[in-house]
Amino acid sequence: MALLFKSNSDSAARWEKELRAHIPDLDFRVWPDYGDPADIDFALVWGMPAGEFHKFPNLRCIASLGAGVDHIFRDPDLPEGVAITRLVDPWMAQAMSEYVLLQVLRFHRQGDIYARQQAEKKWDTLPFPDTAKRRVGILGLGSLGEDAAKKIAALGFPTAGWSRTPKQIAGVECHSGQDGLEPFLKRTDILCCLLPLTPQTENIIDAKLLATLPEGAFIVNSARGKHVVDEDLIAALDSGHIAGAALDVFREEPLPSSHPYWTHPKVLVTPHAAALTNPRTGAKQVADNILRTRAGQPPAYVVDRSAGY
Amino acid sequence: MALLFKSNSDSAARWEKELRAHIPDLDFRVWPDYGDPADIDFALVWGMPAGEFHKFPNLRCIASLGAGVDHIFRDPDLPEGVAITRLVDPWMAQAMSEYVLLQVLRFHRQGDIYARQQAEKKWDTLPFPDTAKRRVGILGLGSLGEDAAKKIAALGFPTAGWSRTPKQIAGVECHSGQDGLEPFLKRTDILCCLLPLTPQTENIIDAKLLATLPEGAFIVNSARGKHVVDEDLIAALDSGHIAGAALDVFREEPLPSSHPYWTHPKVLVTPHAAALTNPRTGAKQVADNILRTRAGQPPAYVVDRSAGY
Ligand SMILES: NC(=O)c1ccc[n+]([C@@H]2O[C@H](COP(=O)([O-])OP(=O)(O)OC[C@H]3O[C@@H](n4cnc5c(N)ncnc54)[C@H](OP(=O)(O)O)[C@@H]3O)[C@@H](O)[C@H]2O)c1
Ligand SMILES: NC(=O)c1ccc[n+]([C@@H]2O[C@H](COP(=O)([O-])OP(=O)(O)OC[C@H]3O[C@@H](n4cnc5c(N)ncnc54)[C@H](OP(=O)(O)O)[C@@H]3O)[C@@H](O)[C@H]2O)c1
Repeated sequence: MALLFKSNSDSAARWEKELRAHIPDLDFRVWPDYGDPADIDFALVWGMPAGEFHKFPNLRCIASLGAGVDHIFRDPDLPEGVAITRLVDPWMAQAMSEYVLLQVLRFHRQGDIYARQQAEKKWDTLPFPDTAKRRVGILGLGSLGEDAAKKIAALGFPTAGWSRTPKQIAGVECHSGQDGLEPFLKRTDILCCLLPLTPQTENIIDAKLLATLPEGAFIVNSARGKHVVDEDLIAALDSGHIAGAALDVFREEPLPSSHPYWTHPKVLVTPHAAALTNPRTGAKQVADNILRTRAGQPPAYVVDRSAGY
Repeated sequence: MALLFKSNSDSAARWEKELRAHIPDLDFRVWPDYGDPADIDFALVWGMPAGEFHKFPNLRCIASLGAGVDHIFRDPDLPEGVAITRLVDPWMAQAMSEYVLLQVLRFHRQGDIYARQQAEKKWDTLPFPDTAKRRVGILGLGSLGEDAAKKIAALGFPTAGWSRTPKQIAGVECHSGQDGLEPFLKRTDILCCLLPLTPQTENIIDAKLLATLPEGAFIVNSARGKHVVDEDLIAALDSGHIAGAALDVFREEPLPSSHPYWTHPKVLVTPHAAALTNPRTGAKQVADNILRTRAGQPPAYVVDRSAGY
């Protein structure tokens, strides 16, 4: 029994070290040098080439190296009967909430305008914002969205969230389902996307959604680039209907240097840095899932293949 | 009995309206058209010319239009026996905490570096910061400093504060007095100044203080410009010992267009916008103090003339 590791962005050496702290005799193999494919029972991956998983006849679990599993579901030919798990890590929720909070506070406190004013050496105190009137909305109330919503609400912002199934979260106005989307958007001044990427959520931030938001709303997207229809967002920024956007994720990463986001005066770009996977904190749950799989038990944090997340 | 109002930055009309909501028959006079000086018993001011208060023989209370009273103590010739009060307003504490939190999160999450990278269209994910290791320190644990410290600590940052007299605040490591300053500075990666301006605190952020902070520390100053020795801060930024500064207040305001802060790549400038006085929320305590003064009672939030705050 051996673990197969594959990622272009995560360190194999760090993961091997952290996993060995829990399972000292772990047989750790790095793609593409995995030896006999029949040895592999557990795959820990980010961005495996499509069709590859079928090579491992004894594969029991595919574990995502991140919170999202869209990179796994991109493979149209996933083997049946193999559990797919994702990373749920308080470290990652903390990191994501900090990112979202930073962008919410920056837009709320006119940090984007003050930065432009500094570039012009312009001393001009803007009308003072009112926290009690700045309505924040979180698309997605999962392990990341719920934590972000609670932290934003704790600072006094009227906060709402939107999920697929109904939720109850103290201090957060919860909306759900297709019918819940419009009322949620109409009351949202700063919209933060923390949805998983699925066929249902792809392109969700399009011209129609943007037009439903109030005039002058802001967008924060730290979920996936494919949630946003880029041309629609740029048009809404240029018309002034949307006042600003902070974007951490893009359809193509690294963001091509010719992309208009880089130089748009109303867009803040960060290089997919909102919440990185941390082997130190993430290894425990991966190790647990390896042991469960090998003991014939179902692993934790299995995703629902039909829902796609 | 009449109130004298004087400010270049606050609206007389708004204050008159908000105070009349509490005291409908208030005699509200705006400097310099105050009529008979003997009518004035209460002054609500920001930036009164020195020597002016002596003109009002029946003055009983000088109320600051802000949290700071340094603008009042600038007058070397204040009449004796007149109470001096300051504004203590949860609205202002909320606003200040948001400002400080925004700057702390921005430095913590490398927002300054990512902004420079965006300007160069550079996609480069930096080493991930660890909240549990980012030590924040607040100079001043008064009505503003305590609220900021609690909100920063609630997000998981190891947080300490420094005050004149000893304090106990849950979740915040409290230091005090001259002897407490060095140990406080040595453990502080992001230093936020929320001190009042007094002879003891003027120029406190000088070369010696900056050298005591760890290499790569950040400065946030939203108290008063005179807390900082500008040449020392610029030298520390240029040497790299200090990694960045967010400054809301300056020795001369508006900040002169020739000042190096405007264009320094490691300095963020905002135009004294961290926490503005709000007549809607502030009028209640000012009205209470007018009524107390007229009833012969001592007003609330009186400052200590010998301490200077
Ligand atoms: N930029 C970064 O650095 C970074 C880092 C980590 C993660 N991410 C992204 O963040 C995403 C969210 O992570 P998570 O751990 O919070 O995921 P999660 O726990 O699976 O939560 C997903 C949330 O989205 C809701 N949702 C899914 N499909 C929906 C639909 N069609 N309509 C309405 N709501 C829907 C879910 O509703 P229910 O609660 O009803 O199921 C749930 O509340 C990841 O998938 C990943 O793409 C980005
Ligand atoms: N930028 C803006 O928009 C803005 C807006 C509002 C206020 N401010 C500034 O913020 C300042 C603080 O306001 P506040 O309402 O929090 O004041 P405060 O309630 O009077 O608190 C002052 C704090 O500083 C401490 N302190 C004073 N002198 C000290 C010394 N020599 N050594 C050590 N600690 C000392 C005090 O210690 P003790 O607790 O022991 O007395 C107290 O903790 C104001 O004075 C004003 O200058 C700026």
